[in-house]
Amino acid sequence: MNFQKTLSDKINEIETIIESFLPEESGFTATVAKAMNYSIRAGGKRLRPMLMQETYRLFGGDEEVIRPFMAAMEMIHTHSLIHDDLPAIDNDDYRRGHLTTHKVFGEAMGILSGDALLNYAYEVMLRAANLTVHTDRVLLAMKVMAEKTGMYGMLGGQTVDVENDGKPLDRALLDYIYENKTSALIEAAMMTGAILAGAEDSEVALIEKAAKNIGIAFQIQDDVLDVISTDEELGKPVHSDEKNHKVTYVTLLGLEAASKEVKRRSDDALLVFESLKGENPFLEELIRSLINRRK
Amino acid sequence: MNFQKTLSDKINEIETIIESFLPEESGFTATVAKAMNYSIRAGGKRLRPMLMQETYRLFGGDEEVIRPFMAAMEMIHTHSLIHDDLPAIDNDDYRRGHLTTHKVFGEAMGILSGDALLNYAYEVMLRAANLTVHTDRVLLAMKVMAEKTGMYGMLGGQTVDVENDGKPLDRALLDYIYENKTSALIEAAMMTGAILAGAEDSEVALIEKAAKNIGIAFQIQDDVLDVISTDEELGKPVHSDEKNHKVTYVTLLGLEAASKEVKRRSDDALLVFESLKGENPFLEELIRSLINRRK
Repeated sequence: MNFQKTLSDKINEIETIIESFLPEESGFTATVAKAMNYSIRAGGKRLRPMLMQETYRLFGGDEEVIRPFMAAMEMIHTHSLIHDDLPAIDNDDYRRGHLTTHKVFGEAMGILSGDALLNYAYEVMLRAANLTVHTDRVLLAMKVMAEKTGMYGMLGGQTVDVENDGKPLDRALLDYIYENKTSALIEAAMMTGAILAGAEDSEVALIEKAAKNIGIAFQIQDDVLDVISTDEELGKPVHSDEKNHKVTYVTLLGLEAASKEVKRRSDDALLVFESLKGENPFLEELIRSLINRRK
Repeated sequence: MNFQKTLSDKINEIETIIESFLPEESGFTATVAKAMNYSIRAGGKRLRPMLMQETYRLFGGDEEVIRPFMAAMEMIHTHSLIHDDLPAIDNDDYRRGHLTTHKVFGEAMGILSGDALLNYAYEVMLRAANLTVHTDRVLLAMKVMAEKTGMYGMLGGQTVDVENDGKPLDRALLDYIYENKTSALIEAAMMTGAILAGAEDSEVALIEKAAKNIGIAFQIQDDVLDVISTDEELGKPVHSDEKNHKVTYVTLLGLEAASKEVKRRSDDALLVFESLKGENPFLEELIRSLINRRK
């Protein structure tokens, strides 16, 4: 298997699925639809829907019901990026080389199109109930998506991050932020894949644990790369955390301990996959590539 | 029946129900919970949960399943007020005599606590599936709530309103804004009440029609009162629409035609209730009071 080729084919497949759920840019709501679609189409690795789809396959899922959830996941993630970029929060003009949503459509439309994307995620998930006889799974998957998105998940992580901007952080607070701001949606993605495929509760709990380790390892690897990489390798300026006096796993624990933590968490995550009945070699390779990446 | 006394008792009952679904102000998420609860507790007429509960009773509903939906409705409505008040949209410092959320908690927390409230509404609704055997009704009610909230409902109305701020509006555009910005959540409230009580599809359709008329009549009555009322009666400055060069039903059609439109729409709404099997005299009096109000 050529991993890079498979990966890029899968990204294309996922983008086609997401595209099929985007609102039409017509009528009175043309502008908000354009703002929503602009942000979704601005790209990205489509990591969360991919982890969802691959976990779904790992548990033998093969129905269309996964599709609206994949689109909804990317809508929720994109909503959080749009609002994060707003002047009152991170005040970013560019993301992935494109102007941010509020720079193109204005700040009011940045706020409202972010709201509309978050809400549209639920509209799209609710359509999934028509695609399967297992409405109990749809309800449970939506519950997980909602709880991992909300104040006890991603949004909780965002608020704590914003509140502590520029303040010294201890390990407990940093763990909280990484677990919620970064990991919560990765947990939601993989748990939703498992739930919709009919995994047992105990399997869903194992997947949640693995996903948490993957999410945190991914985030700590970000901290490590900011120190050990070069501008050319990373595609963005390195040593930015040090310049911004940002507290990270590396500044808190040192480079060696941070790297060990990445290794420990990724090993733990991969052990979970060995313990499961099914297998999905691509998923395991994807996880290895996320954690061992150089950019 | 003393309508004002009954009304105030019902508001108290509804506030106790809403309060029981609010997040705890503790742990890492204490601040966002405080911001969410501050905005909900800032008061208001609790009109939407009341219309939901009374429509539920009209169709014979008597289970606890309505409660999370009532709380969710107020959370969605409050989310829209918090974001509307933000500097980038209406830039309001006060609402109902209290400082707006972003004035108390800062703009970043205003954005994120609004997001958290919108999302929490879904978390709360999803819990309703455990309170009834009729999960099909819960799914349908959530679908209606989501669609009436989103880009084809309230949020669509908001974006079109923001986009056309200061521009001349024609009747079609004004109707679109009133139908969505104001009526959509009133439709969602009453339809959800009917659906959760087990109303037939044809009855839900009638309720949607009545609710649309109620919402639009309510909004036009706002326009009329701004012209015919006094500062003392209204409790806020009159003639503000004229001063702000705001296009309303009155500026577009004239006072007499606008008043006739209120009458026509409220008569149409009340006719629907006569055609239904059940009855709820309080609900009918509530609707009359909303439309014939002097403030």
